[in-house]
Amino acid sequence: MPPTTPRRADARRNISAILDAAQACLVADPAASMQDVARAAGVGRVTLYAHFGSRAELLDAVFTQVIADAERALAEVDLDGDERQALGRLIASSWRIVERSRLLLHAAQLELPADQIREHHRRPLDRVEKLIERGRQAGTFRTDLPVTWMTAVVYNVIHGAADEVTAGRLTLEQAPDVITTTLLSAFAPPAPTRRY
Amino acid sequence: MPPTTPRRADARRNISAILDAAQACLVADPAASMQDVARAAGVGRVTLYAHFGSRAELLDAVFTQVIADAERALAEVDLDGDERQALGRLIASSWRIVERSRLLLHAAQLELPADQIREHHRRPLDRVEKLIERGRQAGTFRTDLPVTWMTAVVYNVIHGAADEVTAGRLTLEQAPDVITTTLLSAFAPPAPTRRY
Repeated sequence: MPPTTPRRADARRNISAILDAAQACLVADPAASMQDVARAAGVGRVTLYAHFGSRAELLDAVFTQVIADAERALAEVDLDGDERQALGRLIASSWRIVERSRLLLHAAQLELPADQIREHHRRPLDRVEKLIERGRQAGTFRTDLPVTWMTAVVYNVIHGAADEVTAGRLTLEQAPDVITTTLLSAFAPPAPTRRY
Repeated sequence: MPPTTPRRADARRNISAILDAAQACLVADPAASMQDVARAAGVGRVTLYAHFGSRAELLDAVFTQVIADAERALAEVDLDGDERQALGRLIASSWRIVERSRLLLHAAQLELPADQIREHHRRPLDRVEKLIERGRQAGTFRTDLPVTWMTAVVYNVIHGAADEVTAGRLTLEQAPDVITTTLLSAFAPPAPTRRY
């Protein structure tokens, strides 16, 4: 590395290497230690801790990066037209992201509080909520349940599916159809004969 | 305490006092420390750690006790007759338990891995799975989704509701109806015209 490289560029490079290494380590082993990450990133423990004071802090930063990448992918999903089909496309796209980051989510669940993990999903969930709201106005989705609740059901059913895959009770291939069928059935406007 | 009390009875009494105190402390404050629990139980730190080597171990023991109590209540729910109504009664009863132990669950989520928490729910979930299986055979519930998945949806929707109540987005009173409506809609056999 030439001596003219500014210190700040070094720091940026280190942070970037640490985040990439942490993501790779945590996907390979949700229990990966700070030492494992430092080794994989090619930095010393002192450098690692200078940037991330604890394992929870590092996990939070990795999560922030993964969600930012996910946001870019989800922003490109075509949400025009029928809201049921749009929700299906959004679920399929979300599932590809959850599938990739499932083991990272598992690592995060071991260390971060549930509401901190949920807070990371605020922007993707805002998109879901807007789509549900639109479907309610169009008469495609039911209006007898709170919209915040329906959004929470999307979140919990998708993440529940990730847990089921991790536990070996559902396959990666089954998941998107099973999630979509479940959610579209739950969100369909109730027919009078189907009320209990 | 009379000097004739055997040592084992002392230990039993201490463990029982610690578990009760831990439950009360954790419901009042999910971040309650081992020291808080020792103080509330009227035992020293040494005694506390002699029985529970770590906060996670104590939380796991509290959870085991809460689930055992819950099991006794759930075993009394009448599951005869129409499976939709039986599931509604099981949800109502489960929700009363979740409502009582919601803050404890929150404390557990801060410390215990998701799959360890799920494992604690094995027996209540076995009961749900059997009821769903019966409803599938009776034609009351859909058969085009795996029964393990439908069981997981019950678990995730109920616990999702607990998180929504904790976050202030759903009231305790709304929850059981909202959960039941969501699950019965999701589990209804699909009408040909409702397929997408």
